[in-house]
Amino acid sequence: MSSTKIHTESLKTELSEMLGKAYSPYSGVKVAAAVEYEVNGEKKVAYGVNVENVSYGLTVCAERSAISAAIAQGMTSISALHVMSNQEQAISPCGACRQVVTEFMGQVDGPVMCVNQAGTEVWESTLGQLLPNRFDL
Amino acid sequence: MSSTKIHTESLKTELSEMLGKAYSPYSGVKVAAAVEYEVNGEKKVAYGVNVENVSYGLTVCAERSAISAAIAQGMTSISALHVMSNQEQAISPCGACRQVVTEFMGQVDGPVMCVNQAGTEVWESTLGQLLPNRFDL
Amino acid sequence: MSSTKIHTESLKTELSEMLGKAYSPYSGVKVAAAVEYEVNGEKKVAYGVNVENVSYGLTVCAERSAISAAIAQGMTSISALHVMSNQEQAISPCGACRQVVTEFMGQVDGPVMCVNQAGTEVWESTLGQLLPNRFDL
Amino acid sequence: MSSTKIHTESLKTELSEMLGKAYSPYSGVKVAAAVEYEVNGEKKVAYGVNVENVSYGLTVCAERSAISAAIAQGMTSISALHVMSNQEQAISPCGACRQVVTEFMGQVDGPVMCVNQAGTEVWESTLGQLLPNRFDL
Repeated sequence: MSSTKIHTESLKTELSEMLGKAYSPYSGVKVAAAVEYEVNGEKKVAYGVNVENVSYGLTVCAERSAISAAIAQGMTSISALHVMSNQEQAISPCGACRQVVTEFMGQVDGPVMCVNQAGTEVWESTLGQLLPNRFDL
Repeated sequence: MSSTKIHTESLKTELSEMLGKAYSPYSGVKVAAAVEYEVNGEKKVAYGVNVENVSYGLTVCAERSAISAAIAQGMTSISALHVMSNQEQAISPCGACRQVVTEFMGQVDGPVMCVNQAGTEVWESTLGQLLPNRFDL
Repeated sequence: MSSTKIHTESLKTELSEMLGKAYSPYSGVKVAAAVEYEVNGEKKVAYGVNVENVSYGLTVCAERSAISAAIAQGMTSISALHVMSNQEQAISPCGACRQVVTEFMGQVDGPVMCVNQAGTEVWESTLGQLLPNRFDL
Repeated sequence: MSSTKIHTESLKTELSEMLGKAYSPYSGVKVAAAVEYEVNGEKKVAYGVNVENVSYGLTVCAERSAISAAIAQGMTSISALHVMSNQEQAISPCGACRQVVTEFMGQVDGPVMCVNQAGTEVWESTLGQLLPNRFDL
């Protein structure tokens, strides 16, 4: 339905604003991510930014922050993932994020869309392409 | 001001409801956390739950999920941390979470309050007590 | 040189013995990994096992344990990665491990070989296949 | 027995040499750690260095690298932990490392010794002081 359609342009505007909230004093890299999901037929979006730590290993990427937020809001299955960064090129999710996405994205053709802040560099893929033969038990 | 006062009882009710959203198919342990913070004098709360992963090392605790959510909402400094779990005893934050809390909690006497779901076991501490001589650079 | 050739069979025997050292009281899954690398033309191997933690997110996979061990021994570039587990099927590295491997494996056709303990299930791949379009800055 | 006694001075020399193997192109901070343990009455030491990653959250601290190495060598219980860094001050283990140490260090008075590379700044503590009321289930 049009009333629940997520407009990609407004999503990009939101991600661009969220970049300012990224906490990355150590790398200077700012990333924002949006997780699209559906609850009872209604489309929803959860956002996240990267949160670094002086003990680098405790850093959480934007993608995983967004997934945590979505879970807290009741998400059970991810429809699509959007990533925006302040880097010149569109960056793709790291391996850790790909693994966490796969925990909640059933379909291997689930879309992953990456864009730079200017919106001039766009890169699209799917979960299946990003993490083939995923680890599972 | 009373209008912005965070009532602990309502916060406990909220945490108890959030336990149902925890994603912990591997451990069965459900944890919810609330981060209190202030923006422009207004008190706010951000929530999070634990999000496990089939690759255990990619699990995020409830405390860190709540901090990520708070950051995405504009939090810059944590006033208090609340933790509730479905375990019999009140559980305290793990060392990783203590380190992440300290990144955003300036005062060493910042309160950390832990409670079980029944509300019968309560344990209170401070950041300084939980992570003395914290790692920093 | 034949004297420095790493015999795959002896490597499998070593991995099988190392499975007994895995620390995995929470999942019961035992994994051992071997990193092959070269220093001054001499082939070497470093081993690792999975090390779980009561705070699941602090778990380290066998692959990353092996890489840490190799680094401490002077490794600068990974030639090949071997993974063995006590599971029926050959398991592949999780996304986090794929990302860490890529930090030290320059060639996209670097081999990743996975096998179950019985040696009856073998799965081979390359880094490029496992983590295409890897995250980098 | 004197033959198996671990001489602290030689341990410091070893740690100082290991600092050169730390992989920390992102922070420039170099850390080496030594885990002392006993197997069948014989004292042993395992070493580790910090291993950073372009995805900061996949970084492993020296302390945890050393513990992984010790586990792979058969360690079941840590007697003491030593940490050396290239920083001016002696740095203490981060919260994540304290949690992982506690998984393998039964006694709360287990010693944790931190020193700078010059050996001029020394800081000693115990596990119980560093991670009181540890998270456990």
